[in-house]
Formats: sequence, structure tokens, C-alpha cells
Amino acid sequence: MVFLITIAGGSGSGKTNAARIIGRGHESDITLISMDNYYKDLQKFKPSARNKVNFDHPDALDWVLFIPQMEELLKGNSIQMPKYSFLTHTRKGHILVKPKKIIIVEGIFALYDNRINSLANLRIFIDTDADICFIRRLRRDLKQRKRSPESVIQQWLKTVKPMYDQYVGPTKKRAHIIIPEDPEEGMRDTAIDIIMSKIKNILQN
Amino acid sequence: MVFLITIAGGSGSGKTNAARIIGRGHESDITLISMDNYYKDLQKFKPSARNKVNFDHPDALDWVLFIPQMEELLKGNSIQMPKYSFLTHTRKGHILVKPKKIIIVEGIFALYDNRINSLANLRIFIDTDADICFIRRLRRDLKQRKRSPESVIQQWLKTVKPMYDQYVGPTKKRAHIIIPEDPEEGMRDTAIDIIMSKIKNILQN
Repeated sequence: MVFLITIAGGSGSGKTNAARIIGRGHESDITLISMDNYYKDLQKFKPSARNKVNFDHPDALDWVLFIPQMEELLKGNSIQMPKYSFLTHTRKGHILVKPKKIIIVEGIFALYDNRINSLANLRIFIDTDADICFIRRLRRDLKQRKRSPESVIQQWLKTVKPMYDQYVGPTKKRAHIIIPEDPEEGMRDTAIDIIMSKIKNILQN
Repeated sequence: MVFLITIAGGSGSGKTNAARIIGRGHESDITLISMDNYYKDLQKFKPSARNKVNFDHPDALDWVLFIPQMEELLKGNSIQMPKYSFLTHTRKGHILVKPKKIIIVEGIFALYDNRINSLANLRIFIDTDADICFIRRLRRDLKQRKRSPESVIQQWLKTVKPMYDQYVGPTKKRAHIIIPEDPEEGMRDTAIDIIMSKIKNILQN
């Protein structure tokens, strides 16, 4: 029996980091999957048109590939997961992913689709204040993607925030557990520790 | 080391039930404490005046007794916990409570006071939709307390709801883990199961 954990939350909520912390030290037993790899390949669009795609809408994801690949992993079969490039918005080959005892899938839409929700043994939503999410994204995009503050603000106001409100935020109610941000130091550590207890129990049995 | 779990949530959210489920089968290791026992003794008020007290305001609780008693339990000492009567709004004696490895404190204000928050090893908020909370309370008060629907509605609108919005709801952010209601069957069971994993780990060590 493969145990599937899904972790959703807004852009900048800290969901990727949470998934990494949970997986750390259990590399032989836990497969981490970022749903970012399942963005649709925009090869057929001109590069100038690719940036106009709304990447914060669930339709930007290749569900037709994602769902059966998750089903295969849960059956204990390996998959060829696409590698996605955010620079070109196209696929750059594949990675062989072998099934392990625990699979952690993280992404803004990790709790969006009911087929995955019904397969998931534990659904987690990382609930971080919108201002904190925006600040993290601003810092990341300024530094890693060399964007201007105003372009980050425009994208946030035009797509990230409205799409979160429409498609991501409402999936919070589908979570088994919601982890709020940590206004106090060490607060999220406690939540992670509880999840680690479950993981230890799974790996012991 | 005593492990303190606090469980908050609105009236009718299911926090008492969650505490009972977590404690079940571990009676020798877990002490359950309802904060309802710590309502102030209204002996000095006339019976007609007692019903006018706002029981949904944090000042209705006897924090001066509650905080040191929790501190005593955490030090490994027994306490004489008051027994509270909702019929007369007065104390009817005491119960000897012995310290155990795990203490679960549940109440609408379980995450309200920062002294308890800093002592708590795991803070949980049960987040149930307001309509579901009201329906549960309506059913309970009609059946167990022989109230009229309109009197239940009036109390809800005049104190329960505004006090929740002002004092209880904002404590959600102080939780390590928020457990949403279960629109799907078995959803809260999964959250409880995760907490049970932690409890098993504590009791093993």
C-alpha cells in the first residue's frame, strides 16, 4: 500500500518547503512530486504568446497526464515524469520516478481535483497570510527571475490573487489538516512534527 | 514531561467530541479537561441575574484559578478541579484530577490565553462552518435544555456569534493544526488518526 500525501497552498505559502522538510532523511521511502512538472507543454505556441497563458488557472495543468501517472505510482509502477522549464514553458525531457512507500505531491492545485483527492490518504493545506505569500514571491521573482517589482505586482493582482480566490482557497475545505503560518517561531515545526509521527508509524509497519 | 494538547473551536464545532475520541482507550495516560468547569461561580448573583451573564465572553471564565491549576498539572501535581453546574451557574464541589502523561484541554477559549498557549505542546482548532455549529447547538438546546427555537436563535445572534467572531475565531491563527469540518465522510477521522500517531509516539517514549 502506497500512502499518498497531497500538500496545497497559495504561491509563496511555503508548501514546497513543507514537503521538503517532511521528506528529508527519508529519501529511500518518500517520493516528492512537484505538480509544477505537469504544466502543459506550450511548444506549439510562439514564445511571445506563452507568457500570456494564465498559469494560475487549473487548465494550465496537464491533468490528462497527471492523474494516470499518479494512479500508476500508487499501483507500484514507475512513471516517466515530465521535466518542465519555466523559462521556455515547454517540457525538457523526462525523469524516471520509481514508486516508494510514501508519495508527497505538492502544488497550488494539489487539492483541486476530486480524483486525486479520493486517492490521497492525507490532504494538507498550508494557510499563509496573503501579504506574506506576496512578499515571498516578490523576493523570489526579483532575485531569481530578474523581474521588476511592478511586473510582479501586476501578475499578482491580475492572475495570482484572483485565481487563488477562485480556485485554490476554496480547496482548503478539502484538507484533512490545515497548517496556518507561523506568527510565532517554531509553530509550523510542531505541525510538521505531528505529520512526521504518522510517517514514522507508516514506515514501521 | 507532561504533553499538553489544547483544542478550541466554536460552540457546536465538535471539539468536545474530538477530545473524547482522542482520549478513548488511553484513559490511564490521558487526562481530559473541559474548560466549562472553569466558568466563574455566580453564587453571589441572584438566580435571575445569572442568565444575563455573557458566557461567550472570555471574562466569564475564572482564569485566576484555571492557569495555575494547569501549571500544577504540568508540574506533575494533582488539582481539585471545580465541578460546574450549568443549571445554577455555580460550583458544585470539586473533582480530584491526577496528572497523566498527556493532558487534553478543550473549550471555546482553549487558544485564547497566551500563558496556556506557551505551555501547550500542540494547539488544535476545530473549524466547522457556522451553520453546522448553529444546527448542532439548536438540536442540543431543544432536546437537553428544553429551550424554544427562538430563544436559541436570540442567544446565538446576540452573544454566541458576535463573541465567536471577536474572541474565538481570531485564535484560529494560534493553532498548530486546524481541522476543518468533514463535508466528506471520514474526513475528520484522518485528522484524528494523525494526532493519534503523535500520541502513540509520546506514550512509547
